[in-house]
Amino acid sequence: MTARRIDGKAAAAALRERVAAGVAAFRAKAGRAPGLATVLVGEDPASAVYIRSKNRATAEAGMESFHHQLPDTISEAELLDLVGRLNADPAVDGILVQLPLPGHIDASRVIETIEPSKDVDGFHAMNAGRLATGLPAMVPCTPLGCLQMLKDELGSLSGANAVVIGRSNIVGKPMAQLLLGESATVTIAHSRTRDLPDVVRRADVVVAAVGRPEMVRGDWIKPGAIVIDVGINRVPTDDGKGRLVGDVAFDEAAEVAAAITPVPGGVGPMTIAMLMRNTLVAAHRRAGLNDPEGL
Amino acid sequence: MTARRIDGKAAAAALRERVAAGVAAFRAKAGRAPGLATVLVGEDPASAVYIRSKNRATAEAGMESFHHQLPDTISEAELLDLVGRLNADPAVDGILVQLPLPGHIDASRVIETIEPSKDVDGFHAMNAGRLATGLPAMVPCTPLGCLQMLKDELGSLSGANAVVIGRSNIVGKPMAQLLLGESATVTIAHSRTRDLPDVVRRADVVVAAVGRPEMVRGDWIKPGAIVIDVGINRVPTDDGKGRLVGDVAFDEAAEVAAAITPVPGGVGPMTIAMLMRNTLVAAHRRAGLNDPEGL
Ligand SMILES: NC(=O)c1ccc[n+]([C@@H]2O[C@H](COP(=O)([O-])OP(=O)(O)OC[C@H]3O[C@@H](n4cnc5c(N)ncnc54)[C@H](OP(=O)(O)O)[C@@H]3O)[C@@H](O)[C@H]2O)c1
Ligand SMILES: NC(=O)c1ccc[n+]([C@@H]2O[C@H](COP(=O)([O-])OP(=O)(O)OC[C@H]3O[C@@H](n4cnc5c(N)ncnc54)[C@H](OP(=O)(O)O)[C@@H]3O)[C@@H](O)[C@H]2O)c1
Repeated sequence: MTARRIDGKAAAAALRERVAAGVAAFRAKAGRAPGLATVLVGEDPASAVYIRSKNRATAEAGMESFHHQLPDTISEAELLDLVGRLNADPAVDGILVQLPLPGHIDASRVIETIEPSKDVDGFHAMNAGRLATGLPAMVPCTPLGCLQMLKDELGSLSGANAVVIGRSNIVGKPMAQLLLGESATVTIAHSRTRDLPDVVRRADVVVAAVGRPEMVRGDWIKPGAIVIDVGINRVPTDDGKGRLVGDVAFDEAAEVAAAITPVPGGVGPMTIAMLMRNTLVAAHRRAGLNDPEGL
Repeated sequence: MTARRIDGKAAAAALRERVAAGVAAFRAKAGRAPGLATVLVGEDPASAVYIRSKNRATAEAGMESFHHQLPDTISEAELLDLVGRLNADPAVDGILVQLPLPGHIDASRVIETIEPSKDVDGFHAMNAGRLATGLPAMVPCTPLGCLQMLKDELGSLSGANAVVIGRSNIVGKPMAQLLLGESATVTIAHSRTRDLPDVVRRADVVVAAVGRPEMVRGDWIKPGAIVIDVGINRVPTDDGKGRLVGDVAFDEAAEVAAAITPVPGGVGPMTIAMLMRNTLVAAHRRAGLNDPEGL
């Protein structure tokens, strides 16, 4: 292994400290704490784990956390109703509806009902459009975390050849927009891309967000590239417990890259820290204050 | 010259015929004609020419055209007021405020005031976001015209390596989104791109939207590529009249490419035809009808 291992836990801890300091300053100015409302429909165990860590992080940052647990029999209309009440609630700066939702509820309708200024996940089309056109936006947490780690590594991204593998609305596409905003030359690859290894070999920066265990091999990586691995894939192990791996064959890529994020311990921790950051930013904007600095 | 010369005038004429047929069908269903409102602030001669051709095309397509000519002394508030009235007017399906606006008016505020469903230029952040996230959107006319010409040439764009040079909100960025939506592998280049000739040499499809006369040279083009030249640049001539050229050195590129758009007579005519198409589509959506087919 020659690559630097990018420590997502440490970066996330540092960001959470900056957020906590920002929360204290916000309280002093606004006379209230920023508030994040989370909504969980049903009992999916993975979703329940995510929501618990989000709520814990919210409390740890000194923000108010409002959790709404709903049965999976709730109707779409009832859920939209709740979102409407949260939109109107002045104590709520951020609204997060945990996905996936049960099949009888149209997730995109729910997302489009969230007031864009409270859409701390950054999934509303208005926020995607504000990001795309260079206006202040709420930006999805995972690509925002990836960008932070890249800037920490490289300083400026201007002129770098960046390849994003994956074009989902929550990772790949906003990642490409963020990299373009930093003046990288950006290529977006996906399942229809021809000769993906060759495309990736030209990249100074690789962001893999595919969902295929260890698909990106070491000999795809340009020597000295920075590799950000967004993938979280569980693969079977002999003991039956399974093990998490990314979309990149870590050991191989680490022989060639200059720096690489591990899985777990890379992008994952940054995602929740960025949710805290987005909630704090939303609180500032809603209170008519300038965005907090250094976040 | 070995390249096929893509005839934008003929493609635009064909599209306008399809639009005119769609207008007749819409009238029959909705009992009224689609309507386009244009707003021109001041007397800029180039803008006046554009607006006149747009209004002429609207009438020729059988649609209603409402033109609002305002003095350049009008205040921003008065202009926003007019936009509000057009938003509320049921006879108006599309609203086009000709840019640039005088310096004392914030163009982005004007654009964000247009009701997104009537934003036939596709400049509103909501439309940029709907395009980016794959929802039905109003898409900017110029990249929409480029895409149409590319599909006419190639059929499927899936897996093609596409390079877009330029990242403006009105051409480069939406062009990249459209190409991605067609499953091309998309690279966006711009003024910070390193070794642009090398980036362009890998492209099966090149879209140049830069605004630099004949910047893209013949030896940048991969043999057999399709080249779409969005640039419109006036260069001086001996007779003092000047002459229009694109962003691509046409004669050189035509030796190498499989097909190329000329300037003038390429992308330009398609842009106005797509404005007619967008107005017809907006009318359908506002009337609760399915999008017209074959447009
Ligand atoms: N760390 C975190 O906090 C975090 C957050 C979100 C997601 N993730 C993880 O990141 C991964 C991606 O998530 P997502 O939501 O973006 O997934 P997604 O919506 O399933 O998108 C996957 C993308 O990968 C592309 N792809 C699939 N197979 C490919 C192949 N063989 N070659 C090239 N591209 C291929 C797909 O292309 P097409 O569009 O052509 O189908 C698609 O664009 C998953 O492992 C997920 O668990 C992690
Ligand atoms: N046919 C039509 O109907 C139509 C419609 C609209 C526009 N146009 C024409 O299309 C051209 C572009 O228009 P626009 O509105 O997109 O222009 P724009 O807003 O000025 O954007 C130009 C883009 O080109 C990039 N660029 C500038 N110099 C470059 C260089 N040396 N190498 C690589 N990239 C460079 C810029 O990069 P940075 O972002 O890094 O500065 C920018 O992204 C103009 O000639 C315009 O007249 C034609």
